[in-house]
Amino acid sequence: MGIHRVAVVGASGYGGLQTLRLLNAHAAFDITYLGGERSAGRSWSEICPFLPLCDDLIVDSPDPDRIAAAADFAVLSLPNGLASQLVPPLLERGVRVVDLSADYRYRSLDQWAAVYVHEARTHQRVDADLCTEAVYGLPEWHGAEIAEARLVAAPGCFPTTSLLPLLPFLKQGLIETEGLIIDAKTGTSGGGRAAKENLLLAEASESISPYGVVGHRHTSEIEQLASTVAGCPLQIQFTPHLVPMVRGLLATVYARLRDPGLTAEDCTMVLEAVYRHHPCVRVLPVGTYPATKWAKHTNLALLSVQVDGRTGRLVLMSAVDNLMKGQAGQGVQCLNLMAGLSVSEGLPLAPFYP
Amino acid sequence: MGIHRVAVVGASGYGGLQTLRLLNAHAAFDITYLGGERSAGRSWSEICPFLPLCDDLIVDSPDPDRIAAAADFAVLSLPNGLASQLVPPLLERGVRVVDLSADYRYRSLDQWAAVYVHEARTHQRVDADLCTEAVYGLPEWHGAEIAEARLVAAPGCFPTTSLLPLLPFLKQGLIETEGLIIDAKTGTSGGGRAAKENLLLAEASESISPYGVVGHRHTSEIEQLASTVAGCPLQIQFTPHLVPMVRGLLATVYARLRDPGLTAEDCTMVLEAVYRHHPCVRVLPVGTYPATKWAKHTNLALLSVQVDGRTGRLVLMSAVDNLMKGQAGQGVQCLNLMAGLSVSEGLPLAPFYP
Amino acid sequence: MGIHRVAVVGASGYGGLQTLRLLNAHAAFDITYLGGERSAGRSWSEICPFLPLCDDLIVDSPDPDRIAAAADFAVLSLPNGLASQLVPPLLERGVRVVDLSADYRYRSLDQWAAVYVHEARTHQRVDADLCTEAVYGLPEWHGAEIAEARLVAAPGCFPTTSLLPLLPFLKQGLIETEGLIIDAKTGTSGGGRAAKENLLLAEASESISPYGVVGHRHTSEIEQLASTVAGCPLQIQFTPHLVPMVRGLLATVYARLRDPGLTAEDCTMVLEAVYRHHPCVRVLPVGTYPATKWAKHTNLALLSVQVDGRTGRLVLMSAVDNLMKGQAGQGVQCLNLMAGLSVSEGLPLAPFYP
Amino acid sequence: MGIHRVAVVGASGYGGLQTLRLLNAHAAFDITYLGGERSAGRSWSEICPFLPLCDDLIVDSPDPDRIAAAADFAVLSLPNGLASQLVPPLLERGVRVVDLSADYRYRSLDQWAAVYVHEARTHQRVDADLCTEAVYGLPEWHGAEIAEARLVAAPGCFPTTSLLPLLPFLKQGLIETEGLIIDAKTGTSGGGRAAKENLLLAEASESISPYGVVGHRHTSEIEQLASTVAGCPLQIQFTPHLVPMVRGLLATVYARLRDPGLTAEDCTMVLEAVYRHHPCVRVLPVGTYPATKWAKHTNLALLSVQVDGRTGRLVLMSAVDNLMKGQAGQGVQCLNLMAGLSVSEGLPLAPFYP
Repeated sequence: MGIHRVAVVGASGYGGLQTLRLLNAHAAFDITYLGGERSAGRSWSEICPFLPLCDDLIVDSPDPDRIAAAADFAVLSLPNGLASQLVPPLLERGVRVVDLSADYRYRSLDQWAAVYVHEARTHQRVDADLCTEAVYGLPEWHGAEIAEARLVAAPGCFPTTSLLPLLPFLKQGLIETEGLIIDAKTGTSGGGRAAKENLLLAEASESISPYGVVGHRHTSEIEQLASTVAGCPLQIQFTPHLVPMVRGLLATVYARLRDPGLTAEDCTMVLEAVYRHHPCVRVLPVGTYPATKWAKHTNLALLSVQVDGRTGRLVLMSAVDNLMKGQAGQGVQCLNLMAGLSVSEGLPLAPFYP
Repeated sequence: MGIHRVAVVGASGYGGLQTLRLLNAHAAFDITYLGGERSAGRSWSEICPFLPLCDDLIVDSPDPDRIAAAADFAVLSLPNGLASQLVPPLLERGVRVVDLSADYRYRSLDQWAAVYVHEARTHQRVDADLCTEAVYGLPEWHGAEIAEARLVAAPGCFPTTSLLPLLPFLKQGLIETEGLIIDAKTGTSGGGRAAKENLLLAEASESISPYGVVGHRHTSEIEQLASTVAGCPLQIQFTPHLVPMVRGLLATVYARLRDPGLTAEDCTMVLEAVYRHHPCVRVLPVGTYPATKWAKHTNLALLSVQVDGRTGRLVLMSAVDNLMKGQAGQGVQCLNLMAGLSVSEGLPLAPFYP
Repeated sequence: MGIHRVAVVGASGYGGLQTLRLLNAHAAFDITYLGGERSAGRSWSEICPFLPLCDDLIVDSPDPDRIAAAADFAVLSLPNGLASQLVPPLLERGVRVVDLSADYRYRSLDQWAAVYVHEARTHQRVDADLCTEAVYGLPEWHGAEIAEARLVAAPGCFPTTSLLPLLPFLKQGLIETEGLIIDAKTGTSGGGRAAKENLLLAEASESISPYGVVGHRHTSEIEQLASTVAGCPLQIQFTPHLVPMVRGLLATVYARLRDPGLTAEDCTMVLEAVYRHHPCVRVLPVGTYPATKWAKHTNLALLSVQVDGRTGRLVLMSAVDNLMKGQAGQGVQCLNLMAGLSVSEGLPLAPFYP
Repeated sequence: MGIHRVAVVGASGYGGLQTLRLLNAHAAFDITYLGGERSAGRSWSEICPFLPLCDDLIVDSPDPDRIAAAADFAVLSLPNGLASQLVPPLLERGVRVVDLSADYRYRSLDQWAAVYVHEARTHQRVDADLCTEAVYGLPEWHGAEIAEARLVAAPGCFPTTSLLPLLPFLKQGLIETEGLIIDAKTGTSGGGRAAKENLLLAEASESISPYGVVGHRHTSEIEQLASTVAGCPLQIQFTPHLVPMVRGLLATVYARLRDPGLTAEDCTMVLEAVYRHHPCVRVLPVGTYPATKWAKHTNLALLSVQVDGRTGRLVLMSAVDNLMKGQAGQGVQCLNLMAGLSVSEGLPLAPFYP
């Protein structure tokens, strides 16, 4: 098995940093190109003295020709809208792409433009065909398609965390499709590395708050795949919260059981049956609830399920590291499949604790 | 207006410390007795060099006679079950009591024993009449009864935070009583000051996790008052989460509107109408969501409401400081009413920010 | 005693917010003017929904005439260099000023320009006389001068915390003036509210790091007063560190005793003798070391001293809340003196704990 | 190269957990025995659901015969004093030991007993010869001896962090041996996993405080090796501080240069010359100061040096992860040498950031 050459574009944001950290230690990938606007022309070791790479590259203002000359694969970690400008020329030049942004997560360009209104105004797009072609990069559900794909859209952090526990129950028709509620909690690194007042330690620490209540963009992304798997359109109540921690994302999902006789043990078996052979998903025993700290610095999703016999409701809990399984780790998981490697190769599956 | 003498029993726990901090600065109350088993016989300044009191009392092993000799009121901040041993003799001796534990929060002793099973086995109780007599100390809903009460049971932190936004909608029949979901998030001080591994900084920081999923004790406490106000029995899905911060409690409450035509503005007016004259509740403008940091070190509950026209659902948000409006601050608010004072006297209503 | 009218300029930064929080609850001061460039024209309640003021003022683009019409005193919480543009016209119009910046902390304009090189280039200054006139606002050492002053320069957070324990020993000649070392640790709010990458929660939390090693600007400010009190020029090794917390500043000061026979008890008495009648300084008993949490949200400096008989060295420890005694609280303390009030009026001296 | 069998005793504390995390992913070591009193008889997966091991062993009450039957090496992560009871029988049975406690860090039993007074009273010791035989496990300075040793005493976290930057300057006689000051800052995991009130998140977060001022036990451990390397007895002023973070240790070391003409560049070259071929020490460029976050989850020590030409003083800065290079990682580094492996095999050298 040869070594695959990878370009990382948007290297100094959190998604880029995490991608570099993983690929630099990965036996089957070489980082051969670093792209970024802000730090173009500077050497990586100067920008980031704390994360030396095997090869100390100069950051390049992203250019499709130079990327294609240097790399077989590209991981794009750019603000929404920007990736759509770079992906078409990369694909034309034979570079296979994992995009960490939202640009190709929707099956149609119109739907993307309806959700990402501001970005759609700023960035002219004529790549409706690529929206259709792109594979939604949730490896546990689309593994075969990812392996063959030219273009993979890595899912958002909230959709990843929410869909993994929810899809098995929707697929088997065990829960009602009406009244689904997802109450999600994320660390502040989900907001990116650009300096914003509300993400300052002085502001965000010692506090929890909801944001994007009703209408957060990830709602539609979750609904898209959930509807497909359920076989009918469904609507979800999704509320994200900002938690005073760096990494970690917890989704608490509420659904009504169709058969109120199902127990927590039954429902745990449903999850185990689906994820038994997926090394990046771990189903916890009944009564053990996931802490995001258990998933930190790993590419794991930790799932647990509880049933309330009184109310006939299911409570699904799902914890990930938002920069790993919620973003860059999942991107590398997709790369592994695209390169014909084992799905979890080079991906940490055990936390440093505490 | 004279000065009222207050005994604080369980002084060195977080509820006790917060009570002392408030009463020591309160113009109408004098702290005249400190009770505690662990530190009996030691002077307060020795136990707690960072919180000097006007009078440096010796902590006493709690004794009803000595309490009655020293104080007109007693605030009890003791583990569940213990208060029930001290309250009857105190009332007999004419001391009016605010109990911060769960011992008198239920209208019947049987119900308490059904929920607090372990405590009911350890502590023999014959005070069913006091369970009936005790007033549930939510001042915005039971102000008149609190003013006259001999015994006030200060509500739990989760019930306080959840009930304040929920009760107006239940009372007016604006929401369905089926399918109520409360997803709550608390800082670690809610777990008390006794050293527990899971509350160590090394364990609890940089992590969020659910606990007590299905069947947490506060569920029944919330249901009791919610059912009374709604006029029919109802069941609630309640899930608490542990958040990496010292103080703060956020409840996100999901309910289905009976009239799907109601807007966020309408629902905000519902809250404003109820709480306009209550200084410890503040209703935020539509689209402003509460951060617990805004309520920290205040006796405020900050409420906000949003409506999802697509799903016909209401999202209620409520933030408090769990040691203030969620516990000791609310206890002092009750004391104020019992002593004939203004309800918010001596209670901070502005945060130190950040 | 009448009510004094105060203008706060730079209202929405952390120094401004803390000043407003204190003055709004202060019985002897009314906030009658809010100045700020960024938010000029907007109402305070809109900018800051979590900190309502008694009077909901409109923020004004700072203007000397309007300030003089509205206020007797002004507290300026502006970036270094800017205050020097506003102070001369304010003094001309009879407004007495407490400046929280560094602009008037040095006895000479040249010295200021030598330390604040960048600011000196940007802001033309011709107010050398005001540098001489201004009183360095450390109330425990310059109380009488502050009371009479037109212009008070509130000291920096590091100088305040370091000088309070150090000055008594320098004044009495108990320590050598050579070899003084100050190792200081600050929370991130000391870096202000402007969004900077290194102050993001994701960057600053779970980490401690030194910065400004050798040559930090506060070095010269400390040396200025320390030299004056010692009666001879002295040089200090000062190293600040950034600590993952919002508020709090701890200085650990190392000095060599001239008389190696002095004990910790002796040295504690030295501090007690100096600060006995100063309510905002508390000397801890021997063996009790200050935690910044004990000073949080108070205007206290907590001092402790230990002696190492082996090495003949003194270890001084000093903890403050950097936004209170380290900045805005000390500013209000100065205002109290200027207005003829008790020095600690309206200033919290007990922490909320935990 | 074969696989080496390792026993880990004291598995569920932080030192044990970190050791297991590293050895489980290490290609050359198999974990073949888990010892612990508290959890004896339970399976590892039950105790620690978040850190599955390749082989799910049953925790055993530590027994020398069973350890010797199962393992070639043992890592002991036990409270001070306890290891001394287990080490002699293990060595007799041919098991080579890395001890993470302080029991064998001193060259004489008397010195240990003088510092660990309480432990010396509780645990009878007759192993003075082993104190002399044991190798102090600082691989960068004792690599050859460690490789041959039967018994390695892994250094304390503060000594490791302080000695690495200090020893080169002492060895070359570049600094005065009088007046050395070490101001150190540690995360709370250094206090272990046993529940203590002062390490609760509610107490330790949002605060920094000194502890063990004058006379902390690590002082003598630092002085022992520093004196040997300097070639003369020396005394150090050492002050540790507790920082609100899980992991990380920063030492700021102050010393006076013998030759005041040396620059920061010169001093950086001194460090580089010593550590060039040591992969677990990284010397930062002049003006780049280490954040503990850069070392988190790595076995690195990050060193930096600055010179103050005014005062003639050197400021050395050193950052490690206290559970990695400060404890368990260094233990595995020693194991690597003892087993004839490359010194950094299986040890992470890149942080997850942020």
